[in-house]
Amino acid sequence: MPARQVAVAEAARPFFVGIDLGGTNTKLGVVDDQGRVVAQHKMPSQIEQGPEAGARRMGEAVRQLLQDLGISAAEVGRVGLGTPGTMDIPAGMLIRPHNLPGWENFPIRDRVSHYCGYPVTFANDAAAAAYGEYWVGSGHRWQSMLLLTLGTGIGGGIVIGQLNIQGAHSHGAECGHIIIDYNETARTCPCGQKGHLEGYASATAVVQRLEEALAQGAETSLRRRVEQGEKLSPLLLAQEAEKGDPFALNMIQETARYLGIGITSLLHTIDPEGVVLGGAMNFGGAESPLGRQFLQWVREEIQRRAFPVVAQNLNLEFASLGGDAGFIGAAGLARIDYRQSRAAL
Amino acid sequence: MPARQVAVAEAARPFFVGIDLGGTNTKLGVVDDQGRVVAQHKMPSQIEQGPEAGARRMGEAVRQLLQDLGISAAEVGRVGLGTPGTMDIPAGMLIRPHNLPGWENFPIRDRVSHYCGYPVTFANDAAAAAYGEYWVGSGHRWQSMLLLTLGTGIGGGIVIGQLNIQGAHSHGAECGHIIIDYNETARTCPCGQKGHLEGYASATAVVQRLEEALAQGAETSLRRRVEQGEKLSPLLLAQEAEKGDPFALNMIQETARYLGIGITSLLHTIDPEGVVLGGAMNFGGAESPLGRQFLQWVREEIQRRAFPVVAQNLNLEFASLGGDAGFIGAAGLARIDYRQSRAAL
Repeated sequence: MPARQVAVAEAARPFFVGIDLGGTNTKLGVVDDQGRVVAQHKMPSQIEQGPEAGARRMGEAVRQLLQDLGISAAEVGRVGLGTPGTMDIPAGMLIRPHNLPGWENFPIRDRVSHYCGYPVTFANDAAAAAYGEYWVGSGHRWQSMLLLTLGTGIGGGIVIGQLNIQGAHSHGAECGHIIIDYNETARTCPCGQKGHLEGYASATAVVQRLEEALAQGAETSLRRRVEQGEKLSPLLLAQEAEKGDPFALNMIQETARYLGIGITSLLHTIDPEGVVLGGAMNFGGAESPLGRQFLQWVREEIQRRAFPVVAQNLNLEFASLGGDAGFIGAAGLARIDYRQSRAAL
Repeated sequence: MPARQVAVAEAARPFFVGIDLGGTNTKLGVVDDQGRVVAQHKMPSQIEQGPEAGARRMGEAVRQLLQDLGISAAEVGRVGLGTPGTMDIPAGMLIRPHNLPGWENFPIRDRVSHYCGYPVTFANDAAAAAYGEYWVGSGHRWQSMLLLTLGTGIGGGIVIGQLNIQGAHSHGAECGHIIIDYNETARTCPCGQKGHLEGYASATAVVQRLEEALAQGAETSLRRRVEQGEKLSPLLLAQEAEKGDPFALNMIQETARYLGIGITSLLHTIDPEGVVLGGAMNFGGAESPLGRQFLQWVREEIQRRAFPVVAQNLNLEFASLGGDAGFIGAAGLARIDYRQSRAAL
C-alpha cells in the first residue's frame, strides 16, 4: 500500500516530523500517530554549505512546515532524523557519511534539535526506511521484517517487533556487506572487501557486470545502445530485457539469484516474517511483468536454498512507500521513543 | 566466569528451573533470580521410551529437585525448557528433532508443564545456551551477543537486550546455515545445501576435511595414529597440533578462517557487542595455548574482513558455562516470561 494521506483536522494526535537527509535532496514530512502523511516538503540538501547551515535549514523547515499546517508545539510528539553513511547513533554523530562531504564528525542530532526546538531521534536512513515499510508499508501486517534497498549500494534494515536492529557500533543491518563468496576469486565490493552481496547485486555492480560481459563480447541488443552513446544502467538493461533480449533477461535473473543467496543467509539468521525489496533498482516493480519476474526469480533461488519451513512461508514483496519510506520511518522511530519516554513517566 | 553456585538460604527469590533436553542426557537445574545455580541433576534422556514418558520423567525430576531443596511452589517463578532440532515455539511443539527419534510433532511444552505443575517457557537449545552465556556467562557485561556452538553441527543464538531471536518460523539464529560460498564447487552441509558455514567448520566438517586431506596424501603425524586404529576427531587433531605437526596446525587455522568469514557476515547483520564460541570443539579453550591461538586466528580473519569500527571493537571469547549454559539459559528465558507476565498484571 502507498503512503496514506490525512488532513490535519482528521489526523490522530500527536504529530511526528520525519527528516530523510540525502546527498542531493532532503525530504521531510509531518506524520500523524497512525503513520498517515499530513504534509511533506522536499528541498536541496546544499551539502556544500556545511553541516551547521544544513542543521539550521532542516530545523527551520520543520518549524515552517508545522506553522503552515497550524500545528502547535503541544501537538508535536518528537522529530526523527535518518542520515546516510557511518554514524554513532547513541552519540547522535555523523562519522564518515560518504555522500555528505565535509559533514564528518558532526553532532547532527543535537544541532537539528537545537534549531527545530524538539527532541530528535537519530537513525540510519536504511533503518528508518525499513521501519516506514514495517509500520505502514509492505510489511504492515508482519511482526518482523527485513528490508534490502537496491540502489548505488545495498542498504539494509531489520525490524523485530519494536526493535530496529542498529547494532552495538551503529553497524547493524549492513546487509549489503554479508559475504556470499569467501574465495579470492570473488568480486570486490566498493567497500574494498571480497565477496560481499553488494559487489554482485547493487545497481553499480550490475553495471560493472554488464561492462565486463560487453568487453568479453556478449551478444546483446544493449551493445548497439551503448555504441549510440547511451550509458549502461539497470533502466537500460530493463528496457532491452522487456524487448526480449536473452542476455539482458539472463543478467537480471543472475542478479536475482545473487539476491536470493544473500537473503537466504539473512533468513537463516533472522527468520523474519517477510522480506521487502526497496530502492530504485526494481526493474519496474510490482506494476511491471519484468519486475514481477525479477521478484519470482529471487523467490525461486530462496526456495532452492532455504530451510523448507522458511521458504514455504516466505513473504517477499517490493517496497510500497517509495521515496517516502525514509521520512515516514524516521517519524515512526521518533514515535517509539516518544511513547517509551511517556511510559517511563 | 563459570556458573556461580548459591545455597537455598542465600538465594534470591523466586527460583527458576531450567531443563536442557539432549539426545543422550537431560540436564536440569534450579537457578535463583540472579542466575546462580542452587542445584542440578543429570539423567539419561531415555529417548527410546517415547516423548510422553520423557515429559513425565522431566516433570517428576523438576518436582523432586525442588522437594529435595525444600523449595515450595510459591517460591518458584516458572520452568524453562530447551530442546534440539526443528520446533514450533509458539505452539510448544517438537516438529522434527533429528536426535530425538520418535518424538516428532509432540506438544512437549504443555506435557512437561502438566507433569511438573508449572508454566513452561519453550526455546531452542542453542538459543537457551546463548541466553545463559549472556545472562551470567562470557557475555554478562554486554547488551547484545552472538553465540556459535561448535559441535556435531554449528548452532547459533542471538540475544539483543531482552530479545532472544528465535524467528517468525522458529528458525532464527541458525547461524551454521549461512552461505559462505554460493558456488557449485562449495562443500555440502549435512542439511543437504551447498556452501553453509556448518559444512566447513563443525566438528563433523573438520573430520571430513581431515579424511579428504589424508586420502590426498597429506603429510602429517595424524596418519600414523589413524593407521594405529584411532579415529579422526578434533581432539586427535588438537593433540597432533600441540606436538607441532604443521598440517594439523594449518587445518585448525583454516577452520578458524572459515569461522571468521561466517562471523563477519553475522557481525554485519547484527553488530552485537560480543561473540562467544561454545560447544565441545574448542581446541582446549581459553585454558590452553592452542585454544587461545585458535581464537586469535578467528579474530585475525574478522579483522581482515569486517568494517574497521566493528573489527576494532570486537569482543570474542570462549563460552564459560560449559554444559550448564543450556539449563541456566532456559531458566533465564523463563525468568523473562515470568517478569513480563508480572508486569502485565
